[in-house]
Amino acid sequence: MVLGKMDKTNKLNLIIFGITGNLAQIKLIPVLYDMAEKGLLPENMTIVGIARKPMTQSQFQDYFYEVLTSENIHHKHEIKKDIFEKLCQKLHYLAGSADDPKLYEQLKKYSGNKIYYLATYPELYKSIFDHLQKNGLNIQNHDWVRLMVEKPIGYDLKSAHEINTLLLQYFSEDQIYRLDHYLGKETLQNILSFRFANDIFEPLINASFIDHIQITALEDFGVGKRGGYYDLVGALKDVGQNHQLQMLAFSIMDVPDELASRAVSKERLKVLKSLVPLPEKTVFGQYEGYQKEENVNLSSQTDTFYAFKTFINNDRFQDVPIYVRAGKKAKQTATEISIVFKNPLNKLFSVDCEDEPNVLIYRIQPNEGIVFKILTKKPGHQIKLEPEYMQYCYKVDPHTHYIPDPYERLLVDTIRGDQTFFNTAEEVEAQWAFIDPLANARSKPSIYQPGSWGPKEADELIEADGRMWLEPSMAFCRI
Amino acid sequence: MVLGKMDKTNKLNLIIFGITGNLAQIKLIPVLYDMAEKGLLPENMTIVGIARKPMTQSQFQDYFYEVLTSENIHHKHEIKKDIFEKLCQKLHYLAGSADDPKLYEQLKKYSGNKIYYLATYPELYKSIFDHLQKNGLNIQNHDWVRLMVEKPIGYDLKSAHEINTLLLQYFSEDQIYRLDHYLGKETLQNILSFRFANDIFEPLINASFIDHIQITALEDFGVGKRGGYYDLVGALKDVGQNHQLQMLAFSIMDVPDELASRAVSKERLKVLKSLVPLPEKTVFGQYEGYQKEENVNLSSQTDTFYAFKTFINNDRFQDVPIYVRAGKKAKQTATEISIVFKNPLNKLFSVDCEDEPNVLIYRIQPNEGIVFKILTKKPGHQIKLEPEYMQYCYKVDPHTHYIPDPYERLLVDTIRGDQTFFNTAEEVEAQWAFIDPLANARSKPSIYQPGSWGPKEADELIEADGRMWLEPSMAFCRI
Repeated sequence: MVLGKMDKTNKLNLIIFGITGNLAQIKLIPVLYDMAEKGLLPENMTIVGIARKPMTQSQFQDYFYEVLTSENIHHKHEIKKDIFEKLCQKLHYLAGSADDPKLYEQLKKYSGNKIYYLATYPELYKSIFDHLQKNGLNIQNHDWVRLMVEKPIGYDLKSAHEINTLLLQYFSEDQIYRLDHYLGKETLQNILSFRFANDIFEPLINASFIDHIQITALEDFGVGKRGGYYDLVGALKDVGQNHQLQMLAFSIMDVPDELASRAVSKERLKVLKSLVPLPEKTVFGQYEGYQKEENVNLSSQTDTFYAFKTFINNDRFQDVPIYVRAGKKAKQTATEISIVFKNPLNKLFSVDCEDEPNVLIYRIQPNEGIVFKILTKKPGHQIKLEPEYMQYCYKVDPHTHYIPDPYERLLVDTIRGDQTFFNTAEEVEAQWAFIDPLANARSKPSIYQPGSWGPKEADELIEADGRMWLEPSMAFCRI
Repeated sequence: MVLGKMDKTNKLNLIIFGITGNLAQIKLIPVLYDMAEKGLLPENMTIVGIARKPMTQSQFQDYFYEVLTSENIHHKHEIKKDIFEKLCQKLHYLAGSADDPKLYEQLKKYSGNKIYYLATYPELYKSIFDHLQKNGLNIQNHDWVRLMVEKPIGYDLKSAHEINTLLLQYFSEDQIYRLDHYLGKETLQNILSFRFANDIFEPLINASFIDHIQITALEDFGVGKRGGYYDLVGALKDVGQNHQLQMLAFSIMDVPDELASRAVSKERLKVLKSLVPLPEKTVFGQYEGYQKEENVNLSSQTDTFYAFKTFINNDRFQDVPIYVRAGKKAKQTATEISIVFKNPLNKLFSVDCEDEPNVLIYRIQPNEGIVFKILTKKPGHQIKLEPEYMQYCYKVDPHTHYIPDPYERLLVDTIRGDQTFFNTAEEVEAQWAFIDPLANARSKPSIYQPGSWGPKEADELIEADGRMWLEPSMAFCRI
């Protein structure tokens, strides 16, 4: 039912380039097992793994088993024998490099619908596409062909545009599924339901009631083993261009005409295109000790933290500043959107709570939920106010509330042909168009202490406007 | 600090008429112990108990101890020896009937501020007041005199007015503390803080956004041992005239000019005076088996359930119907105010949730809290909505959240001279002025099954408007 009518009738081939790579191991293989367990893999589905290493079909199955039971991958479920065997029946392995014509000869044997999942470096795209084209493997006749590619798309507007141009030489936009796993998060998707299925907060989400918005994505850990990649991109391009702009778009986009791909993308795009880059209001930081991390350049000037201010150039949010920050080795791990309301005009309860405005918080992690910070009467004999939370929490009951992994969700969406939570070429380019001026203004980052809230320049950025970064509260939605 | 500057300096006498009665046993004596434990009894305080039965001071102390340790009274705390002894030092007993001149001679010995707590039948008031007056005991010189009387004040407008007239012959309005313990409830008082210290719901609490309001006070038990009294008054006068109208007033009154007695009473009074009685939209019920209850008339036509519709005649709530119901032997015990919002105009998520509008619920009991019913995305692969709650719950942490008993709160308020949560004469009379036409229209009640939601006529009352009674949810604020 979840998969629609194609569930049983059509043949489906999920063809994964790079099945021995890190992404396949960490995400795709565990998610495929989960889908097998939940009955989300169509009956007639074949999973074709491609990598250069020679393996027999039996060795390929052993490889899957190894990945699933590896401690590093933290697959949380028990691997059940019958489920795994069912999964194995779908597994095919093809050995070959991306530019090996024989590989594509073999691919032609798989008839039916096809999803190409490129879990490879973008550098290989062109070669893969050329070979697919030569063999007619990108052509849709009565069967469809879809392409899944991972973020990041490019490293700036120019390179993103080049990749999009490349993709569109071989596939049409409605075949291309640009995956940003953030878009597959339940907590992010639910922002739309919360906003548009209820009529209480939405009338207040505008410049008349809102003082400002904060978007925070902090991690209390460092780059770990990702130093080699991370040092090339830095925080702003790693999470700013994609995750944080998605968070922003979901929280302030207008109501779409319908809950379908084009309508939702259109509204996200409107937000992205209306954002005003303010390079002079952008701060970069690097945590002390970063240069000594594994695979990091000893004199690296890469940002591990950034903060910027922006505005959205539309009537609804006229003059409502938006403050965005993200970084590693922060005091606390927290990803959240805070819609900070203006202080109540009513001064019945003046007292000591002036710095405690109402805040609507979308907490992506941890303590996932949608909560509303209110002032209530402290129980007792005096009328003293204290901040409290009205909480809607996820995972309250793990038995009834099953939250799919974003990759699972986005794979299912691709199978059923729903592009609502994928990025269009235009969206990706609008993101880079906003980020480029900030990235280009990057100078030597300010050093900050691990375990802090980032460099003091980030505080100064917001304090100059008479505001403060909100400390992410751990007081709500504790399970 | 709670008691203000009078804490240590002045002498205070709390003089309780009817110390051996039911109210004193169930409420006053346990609350006095609690106050002793919390240090809320002023140093120079004397508690003078009055009843007809002869007792020595030592027997009086034994009586207190018996009451505090009685199983029937459900005093939940352990009685600590040192606290009890401290309380005993304050206890004085005077034997005598209300019309015994000698009693008042003895009372004259107590100098300092005085609170008279009349835990007696109203029939005794006049005699007590006359004797107090004869002995100059109602006169305020440099010490103040305050009078606490219990609800109900009268049994209709005429009798209430007579009692108020009587009270005002001996005391001024600012000396009279008309106690309705509902006004002392944390959950009710917090409605004001929630509404007026936050600016998010308040702009929406009006006819533009609200479809209707429901006020519910249901009990899953019958009259028990109260049959004798209850049969004389019935449900409407027992809880309708006071508790439910207070709930209504708190939930829709305008913001007061300040958080002080006169300003708050004034706004409550405005609501009460604007209520439109609709006798033709009033339903009375009696649970099957009521006539066989202890001390109930075998052919009693007393109401154990009522439901009525009303409007408040002001611009803010123009044409917003208010449905009120209360009753015994209902399916579930629940006291709550539900502000039911209009259905979202936006039909993005049409589906099967049309009967699930947003509701702001003030739950007085059980599962005390302020919660907002929203629609959210059901976790999973399809965009299906389900009703959920944003919850602010009381008693989340019993260590930090100590909620005083309403009697304790109102005794403290009387000691410090704060009349905010007491009824003025005008309020009481406005309540009766609204209730009288409904009570006068009372005919033979409809019989309903114990364990039901009341008679079918109550359903018909609201269904005639295309609405339904909301079933009180037990899904939130479960501790």
